[in-house]
Amino acid sequence: MKYTIRHAGPQDCREIMRLIVELSVYEKLEEQVNITHKELEVDGFGENPFFKCLVAEVPEDKRTKEGHTVVGYSMYYFAYSPWKGRSICMEVLYVMPDFRGQGIGKALMCGIAKIGWDNKCTRLQFVVLDWNKPSIDFYKSHGAQNVTEKEGWQEMRIDDNAMEKLAQMAPKI
Amino acid sequence: MKYTIRHAGPQDCREIMRLIVELSVYEKLEEQVNITHKELEVDGFGENPFFKCLVAEVPEDKRTKEGHTVVGYSMYYFAYSPWKGRSICMEVLYVMPDFRGQGIGKALMCGIAKIGWDNKCTRLQFVVLDWNKPSIDFYKSHGAQNVTEKEGWQEMRIDDNAMEKLAQMAPKI
Repeated sequence: MKYTIRHAGPQDCREIMRLIVELSVYEKLEEQVNITHKELEVDGFGENPFFKCLVAEVPEDKRTKEGHTVVGYSMYYFAYSPWKGRSICMEVLYVMPDFRGQGIGKALMCGIAKIGWDNKCTRLQFVVLDWNKPSIDFYKSHGAQNVTEKEGWQEMRIDDNAMEKLAQMAPKI
Repeated sequence: MKYTIRHAGPQDCREIMRLIVELSVYEKLEEQVNITHKELEVDGFGENPFFKCLVAEVPEDKRTKEGHTVVGYSMYYFAYSPWKGRSICMEVLYVMPDFRGQGIGKALMCGIAKIGWDNKCTRLQFVVLDWNKPSIDFYKSHGAQNVTEKEGWQEMRIDDNAMEKLAQMAPKI
């Protein structure tokens, strides 16, 4: 199938929001989604962007029943390892189920790898849910290692309430 | 003990490099360190910074036997969650063993939380090794959740060789 991979712009935020919700339902964590396309516009395409994004688009004649042509996306940002230096974090990679098996996911991931490579990153990092075996197999077949399994890294998170309490105890910097 | 928490500058990179190596030895992964203080200077304090850093400094009369006054650091950068929005990633938090138990680690973490809060982040995220129980207990006592344990998130990594191969297969974007 013909498709193009391109950099997302602010005009894509409604479509990206639709795909964010779709993926969260697949991941069985939809209750965690707490964002709007307006916030994506400000946070991704404002003066001080917090993320960047690639989208996969099919031609009009291949659009979904609902009329969508944006059928996949990958959100990314730059990260840093004090051991290895520059890193690119692929925060999400998603392709709509009807459009899988045609190389779109791989093309998005290769696009992220290229952006990382061009920016002198030595690592592409991301997280995946342990029960999502199709994705883990896909990533491993492209050279990914599970460093939670291999080295024991655990993903930790402090949510807004606890974070606010810590912030209130911060020293003068 | 008296100490100050301040933003790191390029002049701190030699000291930060020393602490990076020290921590990697504690984490039993020192063979993975492949960076120099010169790279830290470019990557953290060049035109396009990939990370930011806080350092903890003690007064001259409390310096280490070797003469160091920078006794801890925390490297961070901004990240993004498509579900929750802005996030701050505390890539490292380290305090030299002789200076622990005096609130320096907590002050660094609270500093990161405050920077995140001031930038409208709703999440403070980081990784920790599963056998590092003292650190895990410390973080949990300040409201951190282990989302690898709770939700099954696995940390995945594609290293430079595999990344280069993917980059070579990238479509035109």
